[in-house]
Amino acid sequence: MASKPQGRTGRRPGPNQTRAAILDAARAAFGARGYDAVSVRAVAREAGVDPALVHRFYGSKEELFVAAMALPVSPSRLVETLLADGVDDLGERLVRTFLRLFDEGEAFAPFLALIRGAVSNERAAAMLREFLAREVLGRLAAAASPDRPGLRASLAGSQMVGLAMARYVIGVPPLAGTGRETVVACVGPTVQRYLTGPLPAG
Amino acid sequence: MASKPQGRTGRRPGPNQTRAAILDAARAAFGARGYDAVSVRAVAREAGVDPALVHRFYGSKEELFVAAMALPVSPSRLVETLLADGVDDLGERLVRTFLRLFDEGEAFAPFLALIRGAVSNERAAAMLREFLAREVLGRLAAAASPDRPGLRASLAGSQMVGLAMARYVIGVPPLAGTGRETVVACVGPTVQRYLTGPLPAG
Repeated sequence: MASKPQGRTGRRPGPNQTRAAILDAARAAFGARGYDAVSVRAVAREAGVDPALVHRFYGSKEELFVAAMALPVSPSRLVETLLADGVDDLGERLVRTFLRLFDEGEAFAPFLALIRGAVSNERAAAMLREFLAREVLGRLAAAASPDRPGLRASLAGSQMVGLAMARYVIGVPPLAGTGRETVVACVGPTVQRYLTGPLPAG
Repeated sequence: MASKPQGRTGRRPGPNQTRAAILDAARAAFGARGYDAVSVRAVAREAGVDPALVHRFYGSKEELFVAAMALPVSPSRLVETLLADGVDDLGERLVRTFLRLFDEGEAFAPFLALIRGAVSNERAAAMLREFLAREVLGRLAAAASPDRPGLRASLAGSQMVGLAMARYVIGVPPLAGTGRETVVACVGPTVQRYLTGPLPAG
């Protein structure tokens, strides 16, 4: 191996600067145009790098979004892991996984940033809506039930977002301080019913 | 009857200006110190008016809050109306009432302002948390079930806030466009279970 480079000339950015430029361009693009309308190719162009490099660093548009928004896990990978154990008790497992991530704090700040964006401007709301629909709720529901998967997923999503708001953002007592497994036992059956139970006609 | 006053001297504020001064003082006080720590007397002092006048205009601290935040209805009055018909189907009636207010738009802007405040600063979150706990959830749950009323109410609140976020703020499809009675039939049983169903031990 040759010796390490002796400092930079300032002309060619190092890999960390390239990654930072890609993530900056991605945040700007998703924030301005939503999730669906942005391509990996467009982000590469706006960052001034080769699209193949973005693919090599991040693999997919979803992973690029996850990195740009500093999410601690890829939601679609989480969904895949949850579904690998089937749909029995899926509701409880989903609530438990979500609370564990949030109680440990690592997922909370990026989530709060997404929610804050969504409540303060319509473009950020569109970004979150499109991302959730395409990468999270759609996958979850399609696997859980063939009957109205979209409605099921958005109902489950409404309970999960509400739980996060009540427990972590607004801090409603006593839910904010209730033990994790009690919350799982209370809220898990709701999510399970939304995903796999009977739905009304109409 | 004497003739109408011919314009104002600018010395003594008219009733509309007095009301505006009271509501400004109330918004500032609730925003800075939360709901519980603010008294009608303190708002009167900060607005430079007699406390009796504030009581005459607004009746109670809750009504003062409702007016200051431009809420379209008094939540405790709403709860009272819902409970007047008993606890059977309370979940469905609560969801229906809430969707009707929100779908018609009149309740949405003030609610969004409260949520926006709560996600962007801790003082506004404290204000909303204390108001909900004292005037809404506590009353609702105490009437619905003697068993862990606070936990029941905050679980129901989590679903209601999440429904509002998903349907109106983030606009998650297809829930955002689903007919009102379908949403009532889906979400009503969840709220009913939280308020009156069995809860796990722990």
